[in-house]
Amino acid sequence: MHHPKQPPGVNAHETFMLKAIAEAKKAAAKGEVPVGAVVVHEGKIIARAHNGRENKKNALRHAELDAIDKACKKLGGWRLFNCDLYVTLEPCPMCAGAILNARIRHVVFGAKDPKAGAMGSVFNLNDFPLNHKAMITAGVLEIECGQIITNFFQSLRLKKDTL
Amino acid sequence: MHHPKQPPGVNAHETFMLKAIAEAKKAAAKGEVPVGAVVVHEGKIIARAHNGRENKKNALRHAELDAIDKACKKLGGWRLFNCDLYVTLEPCPMCAGAILNARIRHVVFGAKDPKAGAMGSVFNLNDFPLNHKAMITAGVLEIECGQIITNFFQSLRLKKDTL
Repeated sequence: MHHPKQPPGVNAHETFMLKAIAEAKKAAAKGEVPVGAVVVHEGKIIARAHNGRENKKNALRHAELDAIDKACKKLGGWRLFNCDLYVTLEPCPMCAGAILNARIRHVVFGAKDPKAGAMGSVFNLNDFPLNHKAMITAGVLEIECGQIITNFFQSLRLKKDTL
Repeated sequence: MHHPKQPPGVNAHETFMLKAIAEAKKAAAKGEVPVGAVVVHEGKIIARAHNGRENKKNALRHAELDAIDKACKKLGGWRLFNCDLYVTLEPCPMCAGAILNARIRHVVFGAKDPKAGAMGSVFNLNDFPLNHKAMITAGVLEIECGQIITNFFQSLRLKKDTL
């Protein structure tokens, strides 16, 4: 893998995860559960997206699906060979399935999702005999990625309490 | 459930599956693996779609995802309450996950998919403790739905042999 320039003390995984975190913060600013994702191809980000389920009124508008959609358009094919996906939260079954369908090489995620995570938490999609497996790295900037979501739900509760 | 008028000897499930089969045939005509889907709300079809992965050059363009996308747009929300999805082939993990994310009530599928089916064949997504379960009916017009796919791959092989 080609590594871009990075600040000292930050490795390549963290560099890209910080970009996914920037996407998650865009979602939070729109009142969406803050999850962000980027797709990296040959050391470059080719797609960025954040969760938009509420504003787009669409169950499919998770960060990962939108990032894969953009990456397919960018590369002009449905197989995302040599592409890696960075996402702040462990993918749900839909997104984990999309990752395998798109032949993503490596998934790097931040926080675990004990309620819906399909890459190790509720189950691991790689455990089944499907026609592709993605390499998985969990827990990159895990605390930061989880904190964004915790903060989001805390501020929602505070708003409710003051109404 | 409200049942539309149907030919004698054909039940409501079969009536809607025939519409999904019509979609699958559109996919075959375009050189796509022939899978079709419809979403039914209060007895009416509100979305129809077929697999378009090759022509749209996009890993997400399975029949079920496109049908769910259209249904969300039609109903104006991400929760497809009281919606049933008819699809000619057992959903893959991505599509099964999307079905749960969209809160689809009932999935009716035709042919089983022993290689990628996530509603009973490779695994059953309903077996995991996720926050929604869809009712599943398998095997409606199973032979017809499977035959379309078998015919498609047979004609591909024939084309190859004559080249």
